[in-house]
Amino acid sequence: MPVNVLFAAAPSRWAQYQTPLSDAFAEKDLDVDLRQEFAPEEVDYIVYAPQSGLTDFTPYTRTKAVLNLWAGVENIVGNKTLTQPLARMVDEGLTRGMVEWVTGHTLRHHLNTDLHVLGQDGVWREYVPPLACDRPVTILGLGALGQACGEALGQLGFPVTGWSRTQKDLPGLTCLSGKDGLHKALSTAQILILLLPHTPETENTLDTAALARLPDGAVILNPGRGRLIDDDALLAALDKGHIAHATLDVFRTEPLPPEHPFWAHPKVTVTPHKASETRPESAARVIAENVRRGEAGESFLHLVDRDLGY
Amino acid sequence: MPVNVLFAAAPSRWAQYQTPLSDAFAEKDLDVDLRQEFAPEEVDYIVYAPQSGLTDFTPYTRTKAVLNLWAGVENIVGNKTLTQPLARMVDEGLTRGMVEWVTGHTLRHHLNTDLHVLGQDGVWREYVPPLACDRPVTILGLGALGQACGEALGQLGFPVTGWSRTQKDLPGLTCLSGKDGLHKALSTAQILILLLPHTPETENTLDTAALARLPDGAVILNPGRGRLIDDDALLAALDKGHIAHATLDVFRTEPLPPEHPFWAHPKVTVTPHKASETRPESAARVIAENVRRGEAGESFLHLVDRDLGY
Repeated sequence: MPVNVLFAAAPSRWAQYQTPLSDAFAEKDLDVDLRQEFAPEEVDYIVYAPQSGLTDFTPYTRTKAVLNLWAGVENIVGNKTLTQPLARMVDEGLTRGMVEWVTGHTLRHHLNTDLHVLGQDGVWREYVPPLACDRPVTILGLGALGQACGEALGQLGFPVTGWSRTQKDLPGLTCLSGKDGLHKALSTAQILILLLPHTPETENTLDTAALARLPDGAVILNPGRGRLIDDDALLAALDKGHIAHATLDVFRTEPLPPEHPFWAHPKVTVTPHKASETRPESAARVIAENVRRGEAGESFLHLVDRDLGY
Repeated sequence: MPVNVLFAAAPSRWAQYQTPLSDAFAEKDLDVDLRQEFAPEEVDYIVYAPQSGLTDFTPYTRTKAVLNLWAGVENIVGNKTLTQPLARMVDEGLTRGMVEWVTGHTLRHHLNTDLHVLGQDGVWREYVPPLACDRPVTILGLGALGQACGEALGQLGFPVTGWSRTQKDLPGLTCLSGKDGLHKALSTAQILILLLPHTPETENTLDTAALARLPDGAVILNPGRGRLIDDDALLAALDKGHIAHATLDVFRTEPLPPEHPFWAHPKVTVTPHKASETRPESAARVIAENVRRGEAGESFLHLVDRDLGY
């Protein structure tokens, strides 16, 4: 008997994922029937993305797990009909892409390469940037992504402070937690990187008060979630000159509407949600591993804690 | 009796180096008389930079070593009056700065951040860049700087090929040497990084023939020496579309004259010799260590091989 796996995502994803998923199931010797449609009561696993249109999980009576295709689960975790185990995506390809985006933009601001990219005017400007060891960086959020970024920035010589809801202890990082820890983490952040999940508690983490705690001339990178930032408070802090620049990859509305003030603001760089792309090949392997675990009666990887919301 | 150390560099360097050198000598318990002028026959060590005006080393009869303030020695190594040992600068601060410049500009081109820095036009452009593991990088030159850059890029996931005159064996790098090795190293280089010393053999390493061996769309970073590149050949390869971009930090004439075509070329980014800045604090410690070694009768660090020219 094959294992029935329902692919519940936007139709455009089917072309991207059908082959990688089939290959990954075959690699694990799993006999899988992978389809975009099944009778609900026949489905063993659901590969899920929010654009699928699937909102009522009640009829999926024999489904052993819902395997989210993306890292963020805020569109599904509050769904009352979902009683099945829910797993997040922790994709090595996504993690590597995030590390590259975060490291690249941190170095871009550290070296001020925009000065040269935008100013090829024939003027030879002598200026020695500080070394990374004199540029403290703070990461808010120490999940898989925050930890990987912290490690990469530490290897390049940046002093890295990490803040998380619960206290962590990670080699090479100054780990802080709690409200006082957050205030301290903000106060030293010449470059601040937002990698928190979006939950009711993290909404507007960067509001007027938090922005005011950052040192003058701080730079903000947001590859995490759009709702972590109070947009109006950020624009005011940029206009005041307190914050030097913000490079933003995620927004409350995506695609970011052309009339949004972030696009035209000289101190904002918009990138179109590129930092956290799931890569089909590596993501498919994570899905297949969880199906294998379910069939073998083992515990699932990356299970979501419904109370915490991630 | 104090050790007499002559500081022979442009007068503007005195302000930068006097305190760091004095501190570094004191740290090593050396009794040093550091000055910009001495009777030549009383000088024990010369701290040297080419803008000093010092060209005849004959009268420095008791000088135990000439300690170059910069990594490059092409302005002094051919001086026939120089019979004293000559040491290059290998400054940890310079190495870290080079790694930061090379890593930052490699990631800039890898992620194509210029697209966003230059194009904040309200258009949300979907595009997933390849991961670093699918972006082969080649470094020409595997001295202290090339090795440190290779290690940092390897840690970020780039497959790194390194080429050097003599065969090396370095962990995590594909090491090549010789003429065939150079051809192979060029043929896979989506991003090519020039970190060779300047010698008669390396002049115009990147000429028309070498440029033709690079894959279509290759990007060139030159933080090494201006004379490694045939400027006209590079401009032709950029105009033909074969080379996608060149980011250049060093030039045959510095400052690069405002009328030089590199400034206005849309596929060239000029940075003003920022990649390899010697940092006074860490460089002073290297100088002091060599003075200590000379006084203790130990061998000097970083001695130049006059035949090789570096």
